[in-house]
Amino acid sequence: MKKLINSPETVVADSLRGLAIAHRELSVDVGKRVVVRGDAPVPGKVGILSGGGSGHEPLHVGYVGRGMLDAACPGEIFTSPSPQQILEATRRVDGGRGVLHIVKNYTGDVMNFEMAGDLARARGIEVRAVTVGDDVANDGLTTAGRRGVGATVLVEKICGAAAERRWPLARVADLGNRVIANARSMGIALTSCTVPSARRPTFTLGEDEMEVGIGMHGETGRFRHKLVPAREVAAILLDRVLADMPLEPGEQVLAFVNGMGATPLMELYIVLDEVARLLDARGLTLQRTLTGTYMAALDMAGCSLTVLRLDEEMTSLWDAPVATPALTWGTV
Amino acid sequence: MKKLINSPETVVADSLRGLAIAHRELSVDVGKRVVVRGDAPVPGKVGILSGGGSGHEPLHVGYVGRGMLDAACPGEIFTSPSPQQILEATRRVDGGRGVLHIVKNYTGDVMNFEMAGDLARARGIEVRAVTVGDDVANDGLTTAGRRGVGATVLVEKICGAAAERRWPLARVADLGNRVIANARSMGIALTSCTVPSARRPTFTLGEDEMEVGIGMHGETGRFRHKLVPAREVAAILLDRVLADMPLEPGEQVLAFVNGMGATPLMELYIVLDEVARLLDARGLTLQRTLTGTYMAALDMAGCSLTVLRLDEEMTSLWDAPVATPALTWGTV
Repeated sequence: MKKLINSPETVVADSLRGLAIAHRELSVDVGKRVVVRGDAPVPGKVGILSGGGSGHEPLHVGYVGRGMLDAACPGEIFTSPSPQQILEATRRVDGGRGVLHIVKNYTGDVMNFEMAGDLARARGIEVRAVTVGDDVANDGLTTAGRRGVGATVLVEKICGAAAERRWPLARVADLGNRVIANARSMGIALTSCTVPSARRPTFTLGEDEMEVGIGMHGETGRFRHKLVPAREVAAILLDRVLADMPLEPGEQVLAFVNGMGATPLMELYIVLDEVARLLDARGLTLQRTLTGTYMAALDMAGCSLTVLRLDEEMTSLWDAPVATPALTWGTV
Repeated sequence: MKKLINSPETVVADSLRGLAIAHRELSVDVGKRVVVRGDAPVPGKVGILSGGGSGHEPLHVGYVGRGMLDAACPGEIFTSPSPQQILEATRRVDGGRGVLHIVKNYTGDVMNFEMAGDLARARGIEVRAVTVGDDVANDGLTTAGRRGVGATVLVEKICGAAAERRWPLARVADLGNRVIANARSMGIALTSCTVPSARRPTFTLGEDEMEVGIGMHGETGRFRHKLVPAREVAAILLDRVLADMPLEPGEQVLAFVNGMGATPLMELYIVLDEVARLLDARGLTLQRTLTGTYMAALDMAGCSLTVLRLDEEMTSLWDAPVATPALTWGTV
């Protein structure tokens, strides 16, 4: 295992201290594992909170800031945050209009966010949760249902913009569910990631193999496939995404090409170019894009594709200003 | 070789097409390999231009935009852009106040930028060049002198801000040289990169080894070292940087912890935390930071550290608004 760390036991605390130095505009509580906007709570604004295992950076800590998350709760590597941790964050970002929890669909995350929601409600904080499950690769593989992957970034951005516009909690939650209903993802890996405490790769692949349908924790996928050119990778991903969410010619989409941690930006642009060509051949309009390493699986090489069917309101909220460590545009 | 590409021969054109789709605010000429601001040339503003081999993304194409570069000229992978290509970009960004070329100190880059500068001057465009050579690792190893590495990003940001403030060309060039004189870098690799056309890693390292003093093209370094914890990596890099540029207690610095392409953000934050502790122990003030993959060596795992001695003017220009694909902050 080759990593720039001090020890597997301290990676989360060590990296949160670094995050605090890199982004002094955030309030980072390393002990309680809570990262909040420096100006939280914002009175009169719904608080937007997400969290989950560490190792996916910039998700979620890199999305704390104006126009996106009010707080993030990083767990240990690939491990859910605790209910107490989520409760603490919920309390810190409650501006009197309630708090939305954006939860990825994994058993531990769902359970701990539910417990935290109950604890917060018992303290008089209104809490709603939306559960992201966009991975078309793992249908029927687990009883928990579809995993939450790339769409999480889009839900966080769009709900964050709505909260910034002072939408009420129920409306922000409904919007989150609408984004989730209109988003699908699938990923491939060229290499496994290595979890620091495990000290060895989660799985192994031959020099001419790729794993199709991987999750964001180094879960193996649906099948192995000979390594093929980027245009065929794009076709494999897009075909499965659109088989699950058929779109009519003329519909508008956002395509999100995400790097899994060790894939150069240049390769992601190549995949985007192929995705754009395939969408065009289907008569779909590529209205917006996001390309980069926005939700990693530690040091995995590979990519995921998320397609979001856009409507005018979602597009407007996507375009709204955002100022976070990992996503910034517009005048905030 | 495991890469998301179509073929080694088409990576640059394929990725530039993807860049154009991802960033419609840029004007990307895939055929001529020139990327310019959508509003170029900006009348009355010095044009800021950089370029060099591809494979370092987001450098340089990701820094084209308001407050930073007016144009970038990407060459083939790790290969200098041609004089014609640089001339073409120079003409496209000349707003009547001249053009600054920011050149990394490699033989081919320096030669081709010099030829392009002569060609541009012959066409009546005022051109100045600054040459970045900040890598303390390769002193005396080559006749060309120190390689330009991480400081390039800082020179581009700071000179870009000065040009946005309508400084004249000579003053922007002097500023660039001041940044260069006050910046030093050094890097380590945990793995080699793989150049697509070579199809195999440039060098090999044992499972318990790191290479100290690497360049940004997979050049091997000064020595091999046992893989050590992040805090010792930080000490190795900082000691050599500050041995070359001694600083007095109380001086203010910017620390730039850069990922080489395949290193997770989490690990870069861990290194930053250690660098901050070491700077503090020396009585230096960590005034600004930059942490992320801003200048890659394809898929190399590892990091580089750049230290810039700040003065008030440089800090103000660093803080000035910027809006590019890879670096954005403030109101632009």
